[in-house]
Amino acid sequence: MKEQQRSGIPLPTIKRIPVYVSVLEKWLKEGKETVSTTDFAAALTLKPVQVRKDLAFAGAEGKPRIGYRTEELLETLHRFVGWNNLSEAVLVGAGALGTAILGYKGFDRFGLKIKAAFDIDESKCGATVHDKPVYPIRDLKQYVKKNGIIMGILTVSENGAQPAADALVEAGIQGIWNFSPAQIDVPDSIFVQQEDLAAGLAVLAVRIKERQ
Amino acid sequence: MKEQQRSGIPLPTIKRIPVYVSVLEKWLKEGKETVSTTDFAAALTLKPVQVRKDLAFAGAEGKPRIGYRTEELLETLHRFVGWNNLSEAVLVGAGALGTAILGYKGFDRFGLKIKAAFDIDESKCGATVHDKPVYPIRDLKQYVKKNGIIMGILTVSENGAQPAADALVEAGIQGIWNFSPAQIDVPDSIFVQQEDLAAGLAVLAVRIKERQ
Repeated sequence: MKEQQRSGIPLPTIKRIPVYVSVLEKWLKEGKETVSTTDFAAALTLKPVQVRKDLAFAGAEGKPRIGYRTEELLETLHRFVGWNNLSEAVLVGAGALGTAILGYKGFDRFGLKIKAAFDIDESKCGATVHDKPVYPIRDLKQYVKKNGIIMGILTVSENGAQPAADALVEAGIQGIWNFSPAQIDVPDSIFVQQEDLAAGLAVLAVRIKERQ
Repeated sequence: MKEQQRSGIPLPTIKRIPVYVSVLEKWLKEGKETVSTTDFAAALTLKPVQVRKDLAFAGAEGKPRIGYRTEELLETLHRFVGWNNLSEAVLVGAGALGTAILGYKGFDRFGLKIKAAFDIDESKCGATVHDKPVYPIRDLKQYVKKNGIIMGILTVSENGAQPAADALVEAGIQGIWNFSPAQIDVPDSIFVQQEDLAAGLAVLAVRIKERQ
């Protein structure tokens, strides 16, 4: 919620960019050289004017009657979200959720690279999870500084969330992707993306109920 | 995206309900007997008029100068999303992501109960994961019918998504919570909630870039 008031680019637009990217990748594979707002509108059940606005926000401009060149548009969208420079991140919390995130294949194509995991439980440390090393949390600050990492992923339990967030902030992280169910308290200069799984559950439950 | 056009209740409103619930639970624990739209507005960085609208959509009506009774409001919100009748679900795909979802503690308080997991890999079947049994996918239909389950959670890989979705539809599921990176194709009568982790990554990357 906070983020909607903080930036010029609407949150729903940003959230749709990965969907445009997925569709574009598919079309590129199929050999489609140009795409139109109408193509997107049909594929994604959006209004053409919304598609045009979204793509304009991302810095893409279509040509009348031609539309967008598929490859060029894909590059523009990647540039927009900074995905052509690999985003490096650290993850805090090497439990079940952390393990799933470390092994999630969907991030690769968006250029996210999780470099290492950190955990408070030293018995987990020294091992690797999905080929990523797990280090003790006390080494976090040194690692983040040394590797110039700006993004932290939080996959700890509700109780561990605030101390882990504090450790990330203290280490110099600029953005936190929070998968824990807890709301965390950080300085205003740090951007928090709350991945609230319960929100998805609420939508599903309400929509199913509406149909019954 | 599809869902926004299909229902009267705005998607952002539904997604905020779990956040209201979290805050209410905290306030209830602290002994706060009544709450006002202003309390919510301050805690969640929303406008009071937005809070009032959200709560009205969920069927809650505040009293002038008093606001809402904390406990009553919590019950209303739970009823709104159908969380006081435990929602039972099956999960398809007992890999890393499926295991994390099966073990995720955040769902319990929202009444989601995952009854069983199904997998195409029979070597995983017969075991339990976080105390949930894993069965072969060929038993899905029979299990869903017998237990009257209407919600399916998809945690398979991109390639496995469409066949798994087909199996859920064939089994009689009414709503699918799709954690796989693939877009799935289902009949219009089935509601799909796409949990697009890449969307969260996009928001985080853009917001960090904006601040640099």
